[in-house]
Amino acid sequence: MNREDVTDLIIEAKVKKGIKWADVATRVGLSKEWVTAACLGQMTLTPEQAATIGDIFDLPDEARLWLQEVPYKGSLPTSVPTDPLIYRFYELISVYGTTFKALIHEEFGDGIMSAIDFKMDLQREPNPAGDRVSITMSGKFLPYKTY
Amino acid sequence: MNREDVTDLIIEAKVKKGIKWADVATRVGLSKEWVTAACLGQMTLTPEQAATIGDIFDLPDEARLWLQEVPYKGSLPTSVPTDPLIYRFYELISVYGTTFKALIHEEFGDGIMSAIDFKMDLQREPNPAGDRVSITMSGKFLPYKTY
Amino acid sequence: MNREDVTDLIIEAKVKKGIKWADVATRVGLSKEWVTAACLGQMTLTPEQAATIGDIFDLPDEARLWLQEVPYKGSLPTSVPTDPLIYRFYELISVYGTTFKALIHEEFGDGIMSAIDFKMDLQREPNPAGDRVSITMSGKFLPYKTY
Amino acid sequence: MNREDVTDLIIEAKVKKGIKWADVATRVGLSKEWVTAACLGQMTLTPEQAATIGDIFDLPDEARLWLQEVPYKGSLPTSVPTDPLIYRFYELISVYGTTFKALIHEEFGDGIMSAIDFKMDLQREPNPAGDRVSITMSGKFLPYKTY
Amino acid sequence: MNREDVTDLIIEAKVKKGIKWADVATRVGLSKEWVTAACLGQMTLTPEQAATIGDIFDLPDEARLWLQEVPYKGSLPTSVPTDPLIYRFYELISVYGTTFKALIHEEFGDGIMSAIDFKMDLQREPNPAGDRVSITMSGKFLPYKTY
Amino acid sequence: MNREDVTDLIIEAKVKKGIKWADVATRVGLSKEWVTAACLGQMTLTPEQAATIGDIFDLPDEARLWLQEVPYKGSLPTSVPTDPLIYRFYELISVYGTTFKALIHEEFGDGIMSAIDFKMDLQREPNPAGDRVSITMSGKFLPYKTY
Amino acid sequence: MNREDVTDLIIEAKVKKGIKWADVATRVGLSKEWVTAACLGQMTLTPEQAATIGDIFDLPDEARLWLQEVPYKGSLPTSVPTDPLIYRFYELISVYGTTFKALIHEEFGDGIMSAIDFKMDLQREPNPAGDRVSITMSGKFLPYKTY
Amino acid sequence: MNREDVTDLIIEAKVKKGIKWADVATRVGLSKEWVTAACLGQMTLTPEQAATIGDIFDLPDEARLWLQEVPYKGSLPTSVPTDPLIYRFYELISVYGTTFKALIHEEFGDGIMSAIDFKMDLQREPNPAGDRVSITMSGKFLPYKTY
Amino acid sequence: MNREDVTDLIIEAKVKKGIKWADVATRVGLSKEWVTAACLGQMTLTPEQAATIGDIFDLPDEARLWLQEVPYKGSLPTSVPTDPLIYRFYELISVYGTTFKALIHEEFGDGIMSAIDFKMDLQREPNPAGDRVSITMSGKFLPYKTY
Amino acid sequence: MNREDVTDLIIEAKVKKGIKWADVATRVGLSKEWVTAACLGQMTLTPEQAATIGDIFDLPDEARLWLQEVPYKGSLPTSVPTDPLIYRFYELISVYGTTFKALIHEEFGDGIMSAIDFKMDLQREPNPAGDRVSITMSGKFLPYKTY
Repeated sequence: MNREDVTDLIIEAKVKKGIKWADVATRVGLSKEWVTAACLGQMTLTPEQAATIGDIFDLPDEARLWLQEVPYKGSLPTSVPTDPLIYRFYELISVYGTTFKALIHEEFGDGIMSAIDFKMDLQREPNPAGDRVSITMSGKFLPYKTY
Repeated sequence: MNREDVTDLIIEAKVKKGIKWADVATRVGLSKEWVTAACLGQMTLTPEQAATIGDIFDLPDEARLWLQEVPYKGSLPTSVPTDPLIYRFYELISVYGTTFKALIHEEFGDGIMSAIDFKMDLQREPNPAGDRVSITMSGKFLPYKTY
Repeated sequence: MNREDVTDLIIEAKVKKGIKWADVATRVGLSKEWVTAACLGQMTLTPEQAATIGDIFDLPDEARLWLQEVPYKGSLPTSVPTDPLIYRFYELISVYGTTFKALIHEEFGDGIMSAIDFKMDLQREPNPAGDRVSITMSGKFLPYKTY
Repeated sequence: MNREDVTDLIIEAKVKKGIKWADVATRVGLSKEWVTAACLGQMTLTPEQAATIGDIFDLPDEARLWLQEVPYKGSLPTSVPTDPLIYRFYELISVYGTTFKALIHEEFGDGIMSAIDFKMDLQREPNPAGDRVSITMSGKFLPYKTY
Repeated sequence: MNREDVTDLIIEAKVKKGIKWADVATRVGLSKEWVTAACLGQMTLTPEQAATIGDIFDLPDEARLWLQEVPYKGSLPTSVPTDPLIYRFYELISVYGTTFKALIHEEFGDGIMSAIDFKMDLQREPNPAGDRVSITMSGKFLPYKTY
Repeated sequence: MNREDVTDLIIEAKVKKGIKWADVATRVGLSKEWVTAACLGQMTLTPEQAATIGDIFDLPDEARLWLQEVPYKGSLPTSVPTDPLIYRFYELISVYGTTFKALIHEEFGDGIMSAIDFKMDLQREPNPAGDRVSITMSGKFLPYKTY
Repeated sequence: MNREDVTDLIIEAKVKKGIKWADVATRVGLSKEWVTAACLGQMTLTPEQAATIGDIFDLPDEARLWLQEVPYKGSLPTSVPTDPLIYRFYELISVYGTTFKALIHEEFGDGIMSAIDFKMDLQREPNPAGDRVSITMSGKFLPYKTY
Repeated sequence: MNREDVTDLIIEAKVKKGIKWADVATRVGLSKEWVTAACLGQMTLTPEQAATIGDIFDLPDEARLWLQEVPYKGSLPTSVPTDPLIYRFYELISVYGTTFKALIHEEFGDGIMSAIDFKMDLQREPNPAGDRVSITMSGKFLPYKTY
Repeated sequence: MNREDVTDLIIEAKVKKGIKWADVATRVGLSKEWVTAACLGQMTLTPEQAATIGDIFDLPDEARLWLQEVPYKGSLPTSVPTDPLIYRFYELISVYGTTFKALIHEEFGDGIMSAIDFKMDLQREPNPAGDRVSITMSGKFLPYKTY
Repeated sequence: MNREDVTDLIIEAKVKKGIKWADVATRVGLSKEWVTAACLGQMTLTPEQAATIGDIFDLPDEARLWLQEVPYKGSLPTSVPTDPLIYRFYELISVYGTTFKALIHEEFGDGIMSAIDFKMDLQREPNPAGDRVSITMSGKFLPYKTY
């Protein structure tokens, strides 16, 4: 058994039992964004969190240990994603990548937005012209330092 | 002359004159995100917008016509970006791509977040532990339809 | 079991039983294009549709649940397809891609043809010089908006 | 001078003079799809067609000769296109490629739809929910032969 | 079971029983080139051909059905082949590709040699300086048409 | 000046003067296949051949020296060719590559068909159903030796 | 002129004048590692630093402005480096990558070593068996946070 | 069983038993960097080392033999790593690669830092602003020789 | 069972029994270079050689038949090898490739060194400064012929 | 001017003046293999060597300085070479790579053959069946060390 097997067990249980990510997040007591990423093999759980997830998805003991190991991250099978939903995010980087760069540097100087000290909130935004997906990302600005 | 030459002219003028993107946006009367993307060769301008941009950056007449042509979009030289700031966004998709997918489908069903009917706002978020970059994206949800 | 296993079960049953996609579509009550794509793991079914498909192909209960999950889309094993029939479509994009772009922008301005709000009809076109494949695609035009 | 230089000359003249592809097609007396592809370096012109194109875009004599040479075809800079409009067509192949294959083989047996004995018509389809792009493709079916 | 499994069954049986492709072709009554390609998963057989192949290689019933399905074609694991014999053919295209193109266009105008309406004959050519492989390919010329 | 510049000079002169490859071959006194490949930068000429080619295409003295240098071979810009005519040859290798291998090994044992001690003849094959391209390749078989 | 042109100007001046990186660093008053990276187009200089660099390498005024712009980072032409010295570092990641990961996680938990809040010192380490290259890297550990 | 299976056995045992790499290193009597790399399939063990490792992780006899075989090295699934921790090292090469090259050549002349005659030490560096990862690498300089 | 399975069986037996390649070569009566390549799935054996190999490694009958089949050659999992020993050879081609080409053409004219009519000898070369690997390659020169 | 420009100058002068690499090597007083690699931009020259090379090829002063700079090594335009002569060497690694690895490890244990402390000799080997290219490579064995 490895961490990818655990992800498969979780997804199979989710399909069979009709579990919702939002409910998993409520039981774990954290945001749905972080909890889903953890279940999909991208984050590391504490023993308590692993026990909760293990109970929700009926995972065997070994799987609960794996959830506490730091995974090899990266959730996509190809460097350019083929799934249309995920591709749209890749397209945003392709089209807006230099814009992100230009505006962040204008505001902050040389550095990056952290993808580690980072949080995210994904919401439905009701709109008469069709509801919208609203995503707010917040990452610490890390300046390049001279030395 | 082609559209990439126009982008080069704009960037050279910006460096020489010390122009700020935020000021360009104010003069054009639109968000700094859209205006910067347009100046970097990703969006199409109206004749009035092109005239304003042309005046700010002292562009020749032919360049102003090119700004009104729809560009071949895509602003990055490689499929996996090498620039650390832009890479962090790519990493977010690599790590959170399946999470975006899982949560959007749980909330909306099968479909995508539009990258066309889309807007974005990038702000500095003051924080005593270090200021943060805050990005809010809003894209219309487009459901797959049966037929 | 995962969604790809379900696709394999469907194709095996189709080969063994000699089922036709057009007949599956008739029983589901939708177009053959959408129904075939769904069976091949690219679309999401309602519980009723999944039940019909499950009966036609003798699928186990778990498979019927998987048909109601949004799949990770993308049906081809390589980024440039090797199958001659599918490659011809890729070649059309390679040869005509900039033509599509030029003509759609001339008619509609900057934006895209939706691949989500999209439908397709594939017909045999009798012709004395050899029958032809006729494909009509219709996708909503989505304009880029300024903000 | 080579064929790509001629394409550049045509596009530059088009931008400067505000020429429309549809008008070029009318003057050449063929469909706008074929004529645009030819101007963009994908098709071969007769001497008369080259003369008409040459007059419309004020091309030098050498350029008119190049228009009569068979070009090295392929109009896109990367194997997976970055431009959102063109990518949507690539996505259709990624999502629907095996569907195209399944349905054409069910109707015609083993073979391909020709991308050479092929024609295409691109139209605006008015629609109260937003106008649509309608593309009709017609290619001769070519069966694999035994020997 | 899928078509690749059938190819594996055929090759295993061939190795165990010492069957020759030329003899298979004689029993099927077609050229050795076409029959070998079909056995290797690239062509589609009629029920009679499938029965003959099935008898020769002792295939189970399901395998005989798979032989009648149109396969996803493409027989090589990498886009640049590593096997020296097959690489030599790739090298010929790399070195002579533009020569093929120049000479066929000089003789026929714009168009292609069909790889579908195509036949091939591979023979040993005795030669005192070392026998030679002689391959004759014949494909219908398909002209690009204007429309 | 380098060898690619010489190829460009030859092609430009050919377009401007309307020279035919078959006529060049006649004047050089070799096959049109070898002579075209040499002009396109894939083969090495003797001083006499270089002088003839230089006269036909009005090449400067330095170019005639370059024609006598062994070129860096490989005439295509991408590893999978985009030009439809050349792609068809690539497709033949993709579909028939394992067939070539199986039949040559059955006839000759382990080894390859030389792409160096190789000749080729390309002819128009008249046919009431549409003329055909006929290509005969002949390469020495080179057996792997034990040692 | 763009940032890469400035890098070329600096390298040309360095070759012509025989300037040493260590001396440049001394005059700028920072480490040789940071200063060399900045001169090679990977870091952003203050106006004072740019003036010093500009004087050392006789750069024109526009180049001094470019040195103060945040560059598009990434100094290598291919994703797997071909230069033997640089490849050895890539090889260390290939061989030791999972070791870095295992040991850092064992010591710190889930997170990364920052490549932004990072410094480096490269020294010659005298050794009778042959001098050694000694590199000390120090990067802040950034833990993944739950939210 | 192959070497990768042995790596999997080691990792599974480590997760189940809660073994630490630092403790394994202590028992083997070598650095934690080398021992971890060896356990992860990148180094070759002596019979005594293999026996110790085998006892720690309860490996079967065949696995202990595999640990003494030289492995096919390379521990990452893609040429550009997706895991954020490992990517940061790749980014350092991308950003600083030419700097490493410039400084090492300035100090030592043409040659490389050996990745074979190499050692490494990874430590936690306490720091009030957040602890740091400190890595010291030491590799023998190998000069290119003339001959 | 396929040829790769046979290679796996051979390597497993070699590890378990502690067999040496040099001894296998002695028993087969050929060079260790050719015999090792054959055991690793790159060469084709005669029935007698296959019997000897089969006895040494205790192979089942079917495996002995597979050893007499011509394999699909190519022994490495990626186009740029990750293993440091094998990479060094790739690096030699990257650094010295154009040198090989220049010197062989200067000596022999246009053509290649055969990789088929080829033999190789690998020896330890004692040296007080550290033993050396000495490899002598000998391949027939094959000239390009005109026709 | 950069190092690649210097390589171009050398090759142009060589073609125009009919210089032979072997003669250049004699004048420099080193092997033809090392000298050719240096002229092709892969090695670093001393001032005296640069002066000799500069005189032979009539290089300007700046070019002579560039010859003394360590170049960014790697002489081939693609990761899999297209030139048939150079490809044969790549093929040898593909076919014999694992054999090199197996035999060197059997003889020396874990480590590599240095590509830096390396020399090479390329000779014509007369042979009545056709002359052969003989290449002898000698590289120091570098063992992996434990630490």
